[in-house]
Amino acid sequence: MDTGTQLQLLIKITVTAWDAQNKYLNSLITELSDEQLQHEIAPGRNTGIYLLGHLIAVSDAMLPLLGFGERLFPALEEVFIKTPDKSGQVMPAVAELKEQLTAVNAALAKHTQSISANEWLSKHSAVSPEDFAKEPHRNKLNVLISRTNHMANHIGQMLLLKEKG
Amino acid sequence: MDTGTQLQLLIKITVTAWDAQNKYLNSLITELSDEQLQHEIAPGRNTGIYLLGHLIAVSDAMLPLLGFGERLFPALEEVFIKTPDKSGQVMPAVAELKEQLTAVNAALAKHTQSISANEWLSKHSAVSPEDFAKEPHRNKLNVLISRTNHMANHIGQMLLLKEKG
Repeated sequence: MDTGTQLQLLIKITVTAWDAQNKYLNSLITELSDEQLQHEIAPGRNTGIYLLGHLIAVSDAMLPLLGFGERLFPALEEVFIKTPDKSGQVMPAVAELKEQLTAVNAALAKHTQSISANEWLSKHSAVSPEDFAKEPHRNKLNVLISRTNHMANHIGQMLLLKEKG
Repeated sequence: MDTGTQLQLLIKITVTAWDAQNKYLNSLITELSDEQLQHEIAPGRNTGIYLLGHLIAVSDAMLPLLGFGERLFPALEEVFIKTPDKSGQVMPAVAELKEQLTAVNAALAKHTQSISANEWLSKHSAVSPEDFAKEPHRNKLNVLISRTNHMANHIGQMLLLKEKG
């Protein structure tokens, strides 16, 4: 296998790991009732719906960060990133959040499934060209890896919303 | 940047993401008291010490899976992988688990910091040469990615052991 093929393979593995966490999240929120999603993951902690909204807002913000386009639902940032849970903010209904998650994932997938290795290795939009010249690891694939781990972290918490087996 | 350099960069980013989760775990268990680690992450769920032992056992099993050598603490598998929490099993003390974590991470790091791109792209020990020929994504780096996400998932849960801010 030549290095170009190896590079393609590693990118594919990384994108597949991202997709796997998204599938995991989708299957979890399909399994949970709307009422279970309203529950706290543990006493006094974040609710399931807040974490769901938080993950959608973070994924949505990946669109401009990766140069894929504008955010689809910029209003989510205030409610689910800048404001902690249980601050009196008005959240969308679970059904609406599920639609937003589907839309954000579709918008991301259009690019993650098709961009070239060179584009994955190019800088994300929050790093300057000068800094990127010194720190070439601050590329788009690194953002995807970091968001994959962020999602895994919160999925671990949302699993606690399931009934005890 | 030529494709060989790009490949090296992606491998470095992936190993750094693994290291970051391990640092996160280490800093969390340093911050938590031994008593906090004995608590359940949520009512009726796994205890912190069980999840810590589970993560060490899974990391230890990566040594043979990645062809890096024998497991250091094979007895952990029975206690923390094959047996669910609160089954009456005898667990090592927290101090002992912390030493085991350090030892396993050191043994892994010796290899993860030094092996070649070709070795990362070679098959892990749980896949046959025939299957690997058809499914070249089942390589050592893929194991590292999958274990990184597994650790992130459980760290999200162990964070609930911290006092509420």
